[in-house]
Amino acid sequence: MNLILLEPALSLSEGRYALTERQQSHINQVIKAESGEVLRVGLLGGDLGEGVYQAANADVPAHIHSLQLTQKPPKALPMVLVMALPRPNMLKRTLHNITAMGVKELYLIHSSKVEKSYWQSPVLQPDSIQKILLEGLEQAKDTVMPSITMVPRFRPFVEDQLPHLLSGKLGLLAHPYQASACPVDLQESCVLALGPEGGWNEFEVSKWLEAGMSSVHLGERILKVETVVPVLLSRLYPA
Amino acid sequence: MNLILLEPALSLSEGRYALTERQQSHINQVIKAESGEVLRVGLLGGDLGEGVYQAANADVPAHIHSLQLTQKPPKALPMVLVMALPRPNMLKRTLHNITAMGVKELYLIHSSKVEKSYWQSPVLQPDSIQKILLEGLEQAKDTVMPSITMVPRFRPFVEDQLPHLLSGKLGLLAHPYQASACPVDLQESCVLALGPEGGWNEFEVSKWLEAGMSSVHLGERILKVETVVPVLLSRLYPA
Repeated sequence: MNLILLEPALSLSEGRYALTERQQSHINQVIKAESGEVLRVGLLGGDLGEGVYQAANADVPAHIHSLQLTQKPPKALPMVLVMALPRPNMLKRTLHNITAMGVKELYLIHSSKVEKSYWQSPVLQPDSIQKILLEGLEQAKDTVMPSITMVPRFRPFVEDQLPHLLSGKLGLLAHPYQASACPVDLQESCVLALGPEGGWNEFEVSKWLEAGMSSVHLGERILKVETVVPVLLSRLYPA
Repeated sequence: MNLILLEPALSLSEGRYALTERQQSHINQVIKAESGEVLRVGLLGGDLGEGVYQAANADVPAHIHSLQLTQKPPKALPMVLVMALPRPNMLKRTLHNITAMGVKELYLIHSSKVEKSYWQSPVLQPDSIQKILLEGLEQAKDTVMPSITMVPRFRPFVEDQLPHLLSGKLGLLAHPYQASACPVDLQESCVLALGPEGGWNEFEVSKWLEAGMSSVHLGERILKVETVVPVLLSRLYPA
């Protein structure tokens, strides 16, 4: 947690913001701050800066007051990421990384090689996702929540929604066959579609290509999905 | 496991190679291959290609025979990675990723912010490291083991060994202060030094700079060590 991310929903009177239990225990156990100490804070959806910590007492819950928010959050990546739903053991880390690296628009999509059971993962419960995304923002000192859309049906998405998403953007399909090398330091915005372990099947590839996406590969090495995400984002948009 | 990596130490007569228990159970449970099936194999330290699977019987252990190794392993990254020893819960994934991405020369070094106890991690036991590196190679379809050197004392390394490592290479210190942006698509080989969570301390930074390294940063976002590794390698050497 490199930032205490204050939630507008927890605002008290006079520009004070109550702390969540998770933040409170971080402040107690890791930062070991006492009342009056200045901490690095951000307002969810807003700016970054400093605020003064006040421990709970008989009158008020633990909170931050006297905010000085003078800094904009870091730039978002100019892209839409469409990703086959990863297996549960990679999902949490992948969502964390996607958020920390600055993706703001993510679609998790079904594919023939995604096991149906993956959609039942407890990681996908709203409270769980919310927590992972907050931690990703706190890691990267960002304040802007990404939007995540679940797409349990492949075809209507690719046929009906994708053309709108692609408007004004380059469409890149991570797929190692009949592909050119993935661009480096892209100067325009893109929609990037990343397949499941084992890749998209033939039908899926044809649908992506029909919609106007181009296949790109990453070289000879096969990497785990959780590794491919930072590799691809960093290659497309080195900060 | 995208490759069965045969070990020269397990060679039988007539160009046959016995399988390890781990490979045997992968073949049984994941690939579900039967005797006579052609599998994708590589020879540790050698080339890649195909070989024929033979299950164990009264005369021989399970093995691969009739190897056709016609393909070179993927290119190595032209770099030396020097990394502050990560905390144990990140160490395994980080070693896996480093191996899968093609680093062949890794130094794990002590730093003031590395807790002494990290050096006692069971992950650092030779058998454990060997297994992680093999899995990294199998993931990326590589055959060439990286060398890993443990450096429990910072100063003698930076003063005595580093100058030799830096000969003919660019020295890059991942350090966000007084730094220029980390290069993208580097056309020369480098030594990259990556700090612990919390960064190198002042003394350490001064020693790295004295030795001829230059500070580079990755932008405003702070990422976990396990994420920074693929981000940096991909940015320096997009495949």
